[in-house]
Amino acid sequence: MTSASAPERIWTAALVIIGDEILSGRTQDKNVVQVAAWLNVQGIRLAEVRVVADRTEAIVEAVSTLRARNDYLFTTGGIGPTHDDITVDAIAEALGVPVIEHAEARAILDRYYVERGGVTPARARMARTPEGASLIANRVSGAPGIRVGNIFIMAGVPHITAGMLDALTGTLEGGRPVVSGTIGCWVGESEVADLLRTAEKTHEGVAIGSYPFFREGRTGANFVVRSPDPDQVETCLNDLTAALEAQGHDVVPGGI
Amino acid sequence: MTSASAPERIWTAALVIIGDEILSGRTQDKNVVQVAAWLNVQGIRLAEVRVVADRTEAIVEAVSTLRARNDYLFTTGGIGPTHDDITVDAIAEALGVPVIEHAEARAILDRYYVERGGVTPARARMARTPEGASLIANRVSGAPGIRVGNIFIMAGVPHITAGMLDALTGTLEGGRPVVSGTIGCWVGESEVADLLRTAEKTHEGVAIGSYPFFREGRTGANFVVRSPDPDQVETCLNDLTAALEAQGHDVVPGGI
Repeated sequence: MTSASAPERIWTAALVIIGDEILSGRTQDKNVVQVAAWLNVQGIRLAEVRVVADRTEAIVEAVSTLRARNDYLFTTGGIGPTHDDITVDAIAEALGVPVIEHAEARAILDRYYVERGGVTPARARMARTPEGASLIANRVSGAPGIRVGNIFIMAGVPHITAGMLDALTGTLEGGRPVVSGTIGCWVGESEVADLLRTAEKTHEGVAIGSYPFFREGRTGANFVVRSPDPDQVETCLNDLTAALEAQGHDVVPGGI
Repeated sequence: MTSASAPERIWTAALVIIGDEILSGRTQDKNVVQVAAWLNVQGIRLAEVRVVADRTEAIVEAVSTLRARNDYLFTTGGIGPTHDDITVDAIAEALGVPVIEHAEARAILDRYYVERGGVTPARARMARTPEGASLIANRVSGAPGIRVGNIFIMAGVPHITAGMLDALTGTLEGGRPVVSGTIGCWVGESEVADLLRTAEKTHEGVAIGSYPFFREGRTGANFVVRSPDPDQVETCLNDLTAALEAQGHDVVPGGI
């Protein structure tokens, strides 16, 4: 199935999390994990994440750099109705396009708020988009997300973000999803460092992560093997297991 | 106590999280919250966070940019004994200094591993530092963290990171800690957006965050007021409460 000579196209994405509430430590971020997991299923690799403050210059810098060197850029946060919601304006500035009222977004808000007190000026802010944008459906709370070029502007509240990701499922071009397999071992990772290094070198295109932990008074580690090629993952896991067992370690399939 | 004319020096820090395991979605990051909360107590503001892959160029870029424009730079992850632990080498490259074996770090490892099978070549890697570094005590698992210039290189495993932060407590110069106060209201944030904007404008030096939620079938929001000046926070919270009550909303002190 796989040609050994043709290098696979790797699709990458970056994520910019916009929010003082994350930087202040008030709110535990949950979007990195869910965006990363979702991207992986689309065959897109999350290459980098930045958390920036609710400041225009910070957003412009992150968006300008990351959209240029990744296939896709996702943002979360800062698209609500209040004064600290400046994402749309900052991204328009980064792109050098004006902010417009998006007729379809406005129609969505009109419908959503018809029995909720109507579209006030604050609510109407959520119909503003950079010029040339299309919308990402929001099945949870009315105000849509926004796609402009390779940028996907999403809500910051995790369950609303999740709904927007769901609306985007299957619409983005990607490569083969990265497959991973895990084994665990009650061993200090320093005892098996050489063995891991050798396994990664032997299996080209495979990345091995070593994740130590301390539990129940004992030292252990999980070893995660990642590759877009499921056969490679399996072969590498088998070799790694054999090498660990040859050193007298018990291996737990699936990890500890 | 506060001079109205002299602007306060704001001390800032950046955090670089090094780890494929975060970008793959496998591991939920916990270090942003704990580093942010700890920094706040030191009177230092977490200004930006980047999550980068276990790749030298990615680490070098993030470290070079962020250390130059912040008072302090913290990193977590990639300082263990295995092949994917490249943080020390990457930071030395960013600083243009060689990597050396740090005698004090080596002595710590010798003591720590004396009854744990000795210092193997893999374990000895954890005594390597950029030239000119000092150490950050690790009260949990032996291998120390590293301070070099304004960069603090810490472990990625959250409870080990916590121990290193603890060892650094009170050693870094900062300003006044940012104080925050929260009130909650069962109201859609879009209904009170103007009121929030006005309150923030009226109270200079205060930042108001609006955090909407949907719970028990109802819409609500918490409003967080932040400033280094506790009096400012209290005054602003009082004004905000009065304004919300004047519109007929019940206000929950401390947030919902």
